[in-house]
Parts: sequence; C-alpha cells; structure tokens
Amino acid sequence: MTDSWVNSAERIGADLHLELPGPGGRRAALTRALREAVRSGRLAPDTRLPPYRSLAADLGVARNTVADAYAELVAEGWLTARQGSGTRVAAGVTPPPGRRRRDAPAPVPEKAASRARGARHDLRQGTPDASSFPRAGWLASYRRALQQAPNEAFGPGDPAGRVELREALAEYLARARGVRAEPGRIVICSGFAHALRLLFPRVLRGPLAVESYGLGFHRELLAGASVRTLPLPLDEDGAQVGALGRERAVLLTPAHQFPTGGPLHAERRAAVIDWARARDGVILEDDYDGEFRYDRRPVGAVQGLDPERVVHIGSVSKSLSPALRLGWMVLPERYVDAVLDVKGEREAWAGVLEQLALADFIDSGSYDRHVRRMRQRYRGRRDRLVTALAERAPHVEVTGIAAGLHAVLRLPPGTEGQAVEAAARRGVALDGLAVFRHPEAVMSAPDGLVVGYATPAEHAYGAALEALCGALPPG
Amino acid sequence: MTDSWVNSAERIGADLHLELPGPGGRRAALTRALREAVRSGRLAPDTRLPPYRSLAADLGVARNTVADAYAELVAEGWLTARQGSGTRVAAGVTPPPGRRRRDAPAPVPEKAASRARGARHDLRQGTPDASSFPRAGWLASYRRALQQAPNEAFGPGDPAGRVELREALAEYLARARGVRAEPGRIVICSGFAHALRLLFPRVLRGPLAVESYGLGFHRELLAGASVRTLPLPLDEDGAQVGALGRERAVLLTPAHQFPTGGPLHAERRAAVIDWARARDGVILEDDYDGEFRYDRRPVGAVQGLDPERVVHIGSVSKSLSPALRLGWMVLPERYVDAVLDVKGEREAWAGVLEQLALADFIDSGSYDRHVRRMRQRYRGRRDRLVTALAERAPHVEVTGIAAGLHAVLRLPPGTEGQAVEAAARRGVALDGLAVFRHPEAVMSAPDGLVVGYATPAEHAYGAALEALCGALPPG
Repeated sequence: MTDSWVNSAERIGADLHLELPGPGGRRAALTRALREAVRSGRLAPDTRLPPYRSLAADLGVARNTVADAYAELVAEGWLTARQGSGTRVAAGVTPPPGRRRRDAPAPVPEKAASRARGARHDLRQGTPDASSFPRAGWLASYRRALQQAPNEAFGPGDPAGRVELREALAEYLARARGVRAEPGRIVICSGFAHALRLLFPRVLRGPLAVESYGLGFHRELLAGASVRTLPLPLDEDGAQVGALGRERAVLLTPAHQFPTGGPLHAERRAAVIDWARARDGVILEDDYDGEFRYDRRPVGAVQGLDPERVVHIGSVSKSLSPALRLGWMVLPERYVDAVLDVKGEREAWAGVLEQLALADFIDSGSYDRHVRRMRQRYRGRRDRLVTALAERAPHVEVTGIAAGLHAVLRLPPGTEGQAVEAAARRGVALDGLAVFRHPEAVMSAPDGLVVGYATPAEHAYGAALEALCGALPPG
Repeated sequence: MTDSWVNSAERIGADLHLELPGPGGRRAALTRALREAVRSGRLAPDTRLPPYRSLAADLGVARNTVADAYAELVAEGWLTARQGSGTRVAAGVTPPPGRRRRDAPAPVPEKAASRARGARHDLRQGTPDASSFPRAGWLASYRRALQQAPNEAFGPGDPAGRVELREALAEYLARARGVRAEPGRIVICSGFAHALRLLFPRVLRGPLAVESYGLGFHRELLAGASVRTLPLPLDEDGAQVGALGRERAVLLTPAHQFPTGGPLHAERRAAVIDWARARDGVILEDDYDGEFRYDRRPVGAVQGLDPERVVHIGSVSKSLSPALRLGWMVLPERYVDAVLDVKGEREAWAGVLEQLALADFIDSGSYDRHVRRMRQRYRGRRDRLVTALAERAPHVEVTGIAAGLHAVLRLPPGTEGQAVEAAARRGVALDGLAVFRHPEAVMSAPDGLVVGYATPAEHAYGAALEALCGALPPG
C-alpha cells in the first residue's frame, strides 16, 4: 500500500479489498473501509476524496451511497466538507495510538478527540449520555453480584433469565411504570431487537401494525423475519388505533411516540385494549424511554390495563447504557413457554453476571438514583435546546419535548433535506423525519429534524446547539 | 390450588395452566411445570406421581416426553425413582427460600443442595466446573476495564466487538491455538450458536456437511435456518472428509471430535483444506475445548493451514463460564463485511463491558493461568474416572480421554439405553451416544455413555463416580 494511492480514487476498490455485500450493507461497508483508511493513515490528512459520482461509478454503487458514507464520516470528524473545497480527510486526524496497555492511561477516545477538534456534534437520537455512566455504582453492584452469586450461576443459565433480576424488575416496573409483572412472566433478553426476534415469526405472526414513523431498523428486522408491517397514521393523540384492520398484533410506543414525541391518548389506550380483546390480538409496547418524563407524572404502561393482551418490552439501553445488552419482556402467560422454547434450553444471549449486577443495582436503589440524576440532566439539556431555538430560530416549532432524549423541530415544507445537509456541513450529525417514515405510510409527511440531545459531552453541548441553529432554514 | 391436587394426575393440565407449545418444547414445558409444582410445595414430598402412560394420555403428549421429564427431574433431585415404588417427590425438597437480599448470605444453591442430599450427580457433558470460576481475577479485570474504558465504550458498540478484545484474542489464539488471526478479521459474538446464526443463511448456505455425531441443538438450529445437514462418517482418524460431496461447507470439531473424542488426523486436515480450495468451500472449525489437552501438545487449529478457507469459532463457555456469553469468529477476509452486515449497525448482543474485561483478563495473563489450573484439575478428574473404571468395570473401554471435559465409555451392543436408565435410577444424569447421532447417519451406531467429568463439585465427584460404576452393565 503506497502513499500514491491516496489520490487515486480508482484504487479504493482494489487496494482496500473492498467486497461490498448485498443491498443494505454497502453504505456501512464503504463507511467502514474509508474510516479504516483514514485511521490507519493510508489516507493522509487533507487528502481530497474523489467526487461522489466518480467513486460511485468505480464501485458500482449508487451516488447516494457514497454521499451518505462521506456525510457520516464528516459527522464523525474523519472527513471535512467545505463548499468549493470538496470532501477532504480532516486535518487533525492522527495515526492510531498503539494498543492500549493495562497500565497505560486511557487514550483520548475517538469521539472526544473529534469533538475537541470541533468537527463533530452528534445529535443523532437513540443514545444516552455515555459520559454519565455510573461507573462506581455499577462496579459496586457487579462486585456484590460476583461475590454473592451461588456457584450454579457460573453454569448454564436459565433462558428466562436470573430469578433475582426478574424479581427486581417485577417490583421496579410495577412501581415506576405501572406494569403488572410477576417474575414468572418476565423473560430477559439482549434488548428490544432481540425481543422482536424471539417473538417473530415463531411465537407471533404478521402482519404487524406499526406506527407510520418508527425505527427503520425494526422494520428491516421484521421484514427479514418475513413479517409484513402495516403503517397506522399518527396524529396529536398518537397512533390512530381505530384504523386497525385484520392484523392480530400491533407495535406501539405509547409513552413517547418514536420519534414524533407525544404519548398515546388515554382514549386510544382503552380503544386498543378493546381491539385486542375483541380480535384476540396482542399489543407490543416498546417502552424505550418511559423513565424520562419531565413536565408531568410519568405515563404508565399500557400493559397495566390488561397484562394478558400486552407484551411490555424495555431495556437499559437508554436508562443506563446500550453497552450492557440487557432487556426484558413482560409476557402474557400464554406466550411464556413459547418464548422460552425459542430462546433455547440454556441462556445463550444475556450475560448472567451482568444480570445479577443489574438486580443488585435495582435492589440497592442505585438505578432509581441514576434515573433521577439523568432526568435532571436531560431536562436541563432539553431546556437549553428550547431556549437556543427561541432565541436563534423562533420560527421553528419544537415538539415532543415532554419526555425522552430527543425532540422534533418542525420545518417549513420542503426544507428538511437541505437542513440535514446544512447540518452535516457544520459537522452536525442528525436525521430528518423522512428516514423514520414507513415506506407505505399514507399520512402527510411533515418536514422536521429529530434532535437527540443526550449524546454530546456536557462541555460540547453549547457548540452543538450553536451549529444546529446555524443550519436551520431562515424564518 | 388445593393440596388434594397432588394425587390427581388429571388436574395437572388444568391447575398448572400448562399450555404446552408446539413440537419440540413439550418436554421442557412439562419439566418446568413439574419442577415449579415441587419447588412451590404444591407437590408435597413423597407424593407419588402418576405413571408415564396416564399423564401422557391426559396431556396428549408422547409417553417418552413424560418419561424424559421425570428422568430429568430425578437427575436434578426433585423426584426420586425406585423400582417397585414408582416416581415420587423427593423427601428432602424444602419450600423455596425467600428472595435473596443484598446483605443476606448467599443461599445454598439448588444444585449443591441436591448434591448434599445425594440425589444428584450431574455427569452431563458440556459445562465446566462452575465452582472454579476465578471470581477474584475476573472482578479485578472488570474493575480495570470499567475504570479505564473511554466514555465512548458506554455508547453504541461496534458490531465487530471491542478492538481491545479482538487484539487480545488475535495474540492469544495465535499463541495458544495456532490460529492466524488479525483483529480486523475477528467478530465477537455470544457463543457458538450465535456464530451459526450469523453465518446461516445470510452469509453461507446449506447443505452443510457435519460429523455423524454432534450436538442435536446445533442440528436443530441449522434446520430452523433451513440448512440441510449431511452427516459424514467418523472413524478413529476423525471425520471422513474424503466423503465430502457437492457441499460447499463443512462443520468439524478438529481438536477433539464431539462427542467421540479423537482429533482429526493430520492427513484428513490437509485433505479437507485441499477440498475447500478445489471446491471453493469453507470449513467451520468448532474449537469448543481446544485448550484442554492432557497427554501431549495441543493440536493446533485447522485454521492455521489456510485462514482464507476456515471460519474458526471459539468461546469462553468451556474455558471460563457459559454465564459470560462471549465468543468469537476468526473469518476469511471475504466474509467479514457480510457477517458485520448481518450483525447490524451496532452491537446488539455481546456485552461491551465484559468484552473489555475479557481483554484485560487475557492481556494480564489471568486467562492463561486459569486455563492451566483447570487443565490440571480436569486431568485429575479424568484420571480418577479412568482409575475407578479400571477397578470397578475393567470390561468397559474408556475413549476420548486425551482432551476435553468428557470421556466416552464404550458399552456392549444393545446396552446403552439400559445403562442410561440405570444411571438415572442412581441419580446420575448423563447421556448415551445415541442422542448425539445425526438422524441420517449411516455409519455403525456404537453403544456408549458420554461422561462429563467437569461439572460435579470437587467433594461430590467420588460419589458420582461410585454411582456411575454401579450403573454400568456387568462384564
């Protein structure tokens, strides 16, 4: 691999041994390959990358694939994009540090490094503040769990999950979320996506009604399991459950519609329970950020209305960290054995020691304390977002701010795409509403930006807001 | 639920709300329901259970399903079976302890309790000695990992796994197993079954050649992914790879054929690599217990012969504990992006903090020390098994003892089933060779017992061997 390669777009495919997989993975593969080339120094700082069009032609991919990969790497700080100057390798990128040794000081993490260069503001939704993980409290729980665990905990695990965790969750979910749970109806899993995989297609079958806006990743996962998803329209009261047709299952985000932001109205809650009883249907309740509600009392879980009609699904991915890979389902009794059957004879997924640590973390009150602390912090961030917009872009309406870790900025019709691009040029990574829209949705398609305000480090949040406001269309 | 239930077989289905799922899960569901009934006290000690036949008829399941459930619960110590007295609830079963509190002393675990009653000897293969988990060393590694982790470690994870762990594994696997690995070709997963799920059917397609004896769980998992498996005959040199036909992929256990016990002969190793090169095929190498070799130098991984033709798969489930749910694949370069694409944009499975802890555990030398210590211990257990058999059952040949955590006792033709039943009556849980046989295998079907010697606690191992010897057919 010679340095002369770096200006030769034609050789990217050859020299990186870049074998792009089938549809769906090309963008990710290209992004990875380019990132690696920058990281390793093969693409030197300030090198100008080939135009979208020519690289796309060389690789036989769509132009948008290349544009998306460039945009992601700009947002991550590996590349810079300035109008008139094209896309270049960022100047501050340094060769990779050597392998971290145990006794060496922790390296400056990539994200922090790119933030320090001012090249990255990650306002994508979906991730809590990684700098606020309660390291000391979690370590204390892990230590107690490891010291107190019976020997059998180190053997094959119960596929339902550790009973200690299921008992802790049953109590916590009842108290904090109004879930009517008992340990025997809880199954531990690795997170929401794992829950979907356990349910479909072997326990439940499609078609599955979903909200017209939601995570594309979940739709793709369901499609991969041959589950057809049918979009329900949304309005200010949440999903229009009156539009449910012949489906036998519906997936909802009742506490905080994802991503548009409102709770499901009480009448809709009652209506969807009535529907499930009348049609022998089931409601999947994705309670992804139900703990984080700011301006009024938490909205209880729909599951509390009828535990036999609702699969309540949650995880610690927003409340603690997606690094833990711990989630749960509270199941109607009739599904418990079938889900355990799919899961297998032994626990094959969720780490048993961290299950025990989480049980201790909840039982000891550390979980409640952490959630309260983060609620304060996120509320503060939300308030700063609202204030900044009121000052800098008063024409932009902010919605979905009563709860959660993200808000939606409503934009004038036709301006969303430009705003996302303008943000990327300022080093701001975020998504527009369009990427969350079900491809078959028939409701109107509002323009908007989904702003995750949990991710940036505290010291970098002001600059992120500044960059965001600068990217908004004029009033 | 009244006590009068306990002698009324007819009411098991009704009163336990026992909804047996579809084929495949009925035995597990029945076992669970019965265990719960005993545990909760609803089935009182010494209660006689209904005969297989009548309970099977009541529940509409096969007689063998009931027999298997009873046998499992006998082996676990919940039930006892004496000839002429039928199957009864064990006398020593006590009501469940209350929920464990943080500051309470650890309860006596179920397994230890049943062992103490002398009712259980678990000689099933597949699990390491749970009492030997290196709690202090692992906690030290977890602490260092948690303290040194950069903040970004608590955000979304790289689906390839933490680079710290991939670097540690690359070095370890090269040194200990002769694997030619580099971090960029390692993908972290939750264990061997997860690796199979990542590969099939989206990266590799069936049919897949397998060894005529292996884990039924793996065959079922593959069948669930619509992968047809074709059995290769085995002989004293391992799998007869010369019989490979038009398949493009073969799954082997080259270090220690599971469960029959021999290594794949050097000529076979070369032959299967030649096959893969000639047919553009791929070898899946299940290196499930490659670290535990007693009488000669370890057999290196087949992967070392040609990294572009072998997917090397390993985990810590045998070397440390199945509770951790950490495994890895070392992939030919052409599969890396496709596997990552299946895994998703973010780590959804393997816990990131325990990945970092394992990296530290390996880097610090703790992993090597633990493996050496366990190798000593398992060798000692194997020697005791061989000695006990030489004294008590000299007519029984022991094979597959050069490595691993289990041995195979060869039995006279037609005696395997009786020996398994005789063992169960003595409270010994183990499997015969028959359960590992591929249903389409055409090779001869030897009689034998697969004896896992890692699981019993140290103090209980002598009694387990005693009970085992008493169950063997006379010479």
